[in-house]
Amino acid sequence: MTTFDGPPIDIDTRPSVLDQFTVDETGRLGRRPRGVAYAAGLDDVLAVVGWARDTRTPLIARGAGTSLEGHLLARGDELVLDLSQADSIIGISPGDFTATVQPGVTRTRLNAAAAEFGLQFTVDPGADASLGGMAATNASGTTSVRYGGMRANTLALQAVFADGTHARLGRAVRKSSSGYALKDLLIGSAGTLGIITELTVRLHPIPEWLRSLRVSFPTVDAAVASAVEMLGLALPVSRLELVDAGSMAAVNAYRGTAYAESPALFIDLEAASAAAASADEAEIQRICGAHGAMDVAWARTHTDRHALWEDRHTLFFALKARSPGHRFLVTDTAVPISRIPDAVAAATRLAAEFGLDASVAGHVGDGNVHAVVPYTDATYEAAQDFSDRVVRHALAAGGTATGEHGIGLAKKRYLPEEHGAAVDVMAAVKHALDPLGLLNPGKILDD
Amino acid sequence: MTTFDGPPIDIDTRPSVLDQFTVDETGRLGRRPRGVAYAAGLDDVLAVVGWARDTRTPLIARGAGTSLEGHLLARGDELVLDLSQADSIIGISPGDFTATVQPGVTRTRLNAAAAEFGLQFTVDPGADASLGGMAATNASGTTSVRYGGMRANTLALQAVFADGTHARLGRAVRKSSSGYALKDLLIGSAGTLGIITELTVRLHPIPEWLRSLRVSFPTVDAAVASAVEMLGLALPVSRLELVDAGSMAAVNAYRGTAYAESPALFIDLEAASAAAASADEAEIQRICGAHGAMDVAWARTHTDRHALWEDRHTLFFALKARSPGHRFLVTDTAVPISRIPDAVAAATRLAAEFGLDASVAGHVGDGNVHAVVPYTDATYEAAQDFSDRVVRHALAAGGTATGEHGIGLAKKRYLPEEHGAAVDVMAAVKHALDPLGLLNPGKILDD
Repeated sequence: MTTFDGPPIDIDTRPSVLDQFTVDETGRLGRRPRGVAYAAGLDDVLAVVGWARDTRTPLIARGAGTSLEGHLLARGDELVLDLSQADSIIGISPGDFTATVQPGVTRTRLNAAAAEFGLQFTVDPGADASLGGMAATNASGTTSVRYGGMRANTLALQAVFADGTHARLGRAVRKSSSGYALKDLLIGSAGTLGIITELTVRLHPIPEWLRSLRVSFPTVDAAVASAVEMLGLALPVSRLELVDAGSMAAVNAYRGTAYAESPALFIDLEAASAAAASADEAEIQRICGAHGAMDVAWARTHTDRHALWEDRHTLFFALKARSPGHRFLVTDTAVPISRIPDAVAAATRLAAEFGLDASVAGHVGDGNVHAVVPYTDATYEAAQDFSDRVVRHALAAGGTATGEHGIGLAKKRYLPEEHGAAVDVMAAVKHALDPLGLLNPGKILDD
Repeated sequence: MTTFDGPPIDIDTRPSVLDQFTVDETGRLGRRPRGVAYAAGLDDVLAVVGWARDTRTPLIARGAGTSLEGHLLARGDELVLDLSQADSIIGISPGDFTATVQPGVTRTRLNAAAAEFGLQFTVDPGADASLGGMAATNASGTTSVRYGGMRANTLALQAVFADGTHARLGRAVRKSSSGYALKDLLIGSAGTLGIITELTVRLHPIPEWLRSLRVSFPTVDAAVASAVEMLGLALPVSRLELVDAGSMAAVNAYRGTAYAESPALFIDLEAASAAAASADEAEIQRICGAHGAMDVAWARTHTDRHALWEDRHTLFFALKARSPGHRFLVTDTAVPISRIPDAVAAATRLAAEFGLDASVAGHVGDGNVHAVVPYTDATYEAAQDFSDRVVRHALAAGGTATGEHGIGLAKKRYLPEEHGAAVDVMAAVKHALDPLGLLNPGKILDD
């Protein structure tokens, strides 16, 4: 460990260490940060922020490092404030259906602890992200169709602000109309307004009865129409995932399966009793049949359910295996429900136009569509242009550039088109809370 | 109509009209505002805000006027900007499960329009409030245990800011991680950060099967324990209301019924099929029985359900009838779920201590407890002291001063105790967005 300029906690400046912070999950490159400090909790964060303020050192707060949009990349003068070691589960209150954690706790660790009380933390972005990072990006995932994302599942935060003060934002209650929604403002602000040092999140009961199914459809439209009808009947589905024909082909190649290579829905259904589960199961069967479902595979035991979802969970690896030596771009647009078929069709059509191979996997109940595109140096520009066209198509449909990954660096250019004059209001809020521009500068907004 | 100082739209300054704006729903008194302007939509609001800025005239935006916490009372120099006539339903998009409305549309009007598509707007605060006002106070109500309050059910806003600009906040999609959550910040800000001129809200399917029940319990603890067990099994309850013994006695006296005069739960249960409804019904029956339920009344038809809920909906009138010549104070604290029995017991005990007659009706699934207290001029101070003790009890239990009514004027004094240093952050946000203090000054925060 080297120290410099009298920082309040040890700062690591070894080039070999800093090099690890120059690249993110997508392969996107930044510069070496000035150093990295590992904070164990509030006191360390307060000390570092106070020092950063005195020395005008910009800070990049960081959790598990699973960002996909460049949130964590440095320009060179920043100190990385790594919170992955601030990882205590402070308490689980089963009678309140809540847990209080430090920001470095990952969702799988929290889930393991909550399961002892028959409870679960439902937000599942795929990666084993930290809770602090998930709040910072307003992460969501497969279960948000039923349970919502991080904003809905975070009751209260503790945060350190750029002026060196800290505060609790919100109370650990299910409802409050008291004061401004600072908790909601901090969530999704990617460490640009404050640094999250503690979270109280909602836990939900692990359902008594859970059934999973994989349904093949002749067309994307038929799959989406089935999904919308399930939403229209308020069936208790907790996952509602669309996977396109090409993705199913990749699964077959990777897993040695022989599924129909046509669009499919992967569904979880929750119920409080076996009888309710069976009744809801019959409704889903009826709906899918009415839309021409070709094949319905039910999984009713834990083992079968796990095997069924393994196909969906390993999809990214299946796609990687199909395109060795490639890097991967993942789009993250969300559109109004009625525009989903069009969004999926546009992604497929645009990929063909650019000579790319796009696979679509969407959180269809939320209108959140991911297109996964392998690319090489030779097709990098085409992949970027493809992504740009997909985003603009979503924005024109009333959608958003990012359903769950965040703006970071990579989607900044779409902020004016998506938000218009509201960008100025965002800038006013940023300036009010971080007038020196020390907190993750250049992310979400330009400095 | 009189005009003065060249205002951009007609301003009514007749004393007889202004007198109507000096008192709110609770009987709380303010001063005559300077005038009242009726805005038909965005253009009128822009014109009034621009003029207000030029003339340094503070504005109080107002919808249906059903606030319970003094949000709408004037100090004397304000212009009331009445948006109740900005009441167009701009569009309902059944395929997206959304509606876009002007702020003066009331929830019952929206529900009547949505019902034609088999959809409902679920936020139900009791009063026939305007959507704009409900967003401004982050209103919720009986159904929020299942569907959440205004923040969860509002996808996007259009708002006019104090600098005379307007912007769209958020997009009409179910998920977005794009930029700062200005939509969520404006919701609950009571017209102090911006004036809402349009809302896109979520609609939910009207459930296929709906059953209601009223269950009598020997004790409040038994009722709450049953409710918590229903939450723990994730049973699909959409209303979960606790009514205390005194309230049931008032219902009997008012409605000529002969219910057990003991604590009761009023419950709505939703299902996608008759079989699922029956299965869930059996689970609820089992839970209530295990906690010593003395009487379970089921309502399975629309007529029976309406009659059952009429007892709960007319409770306030029943309480009024029992205390003629009184005014009424309603507390609005919310506490963590495990603290509900204690919060109910404290309200009852404190009322007795102050010689008052408190009836408790709580949104038990949310931890939101209302104590209704009749008072006269002679007992006004006692009622205020009672309210103060109830709030401090809730804050000490980790709760909030206001679950759904808002801070307004009446709960301002609790802001520092509830939010600590976060109050300074709120003030910084207010100053950034309204540096001249023109928007509903003195509400939520001191000027």
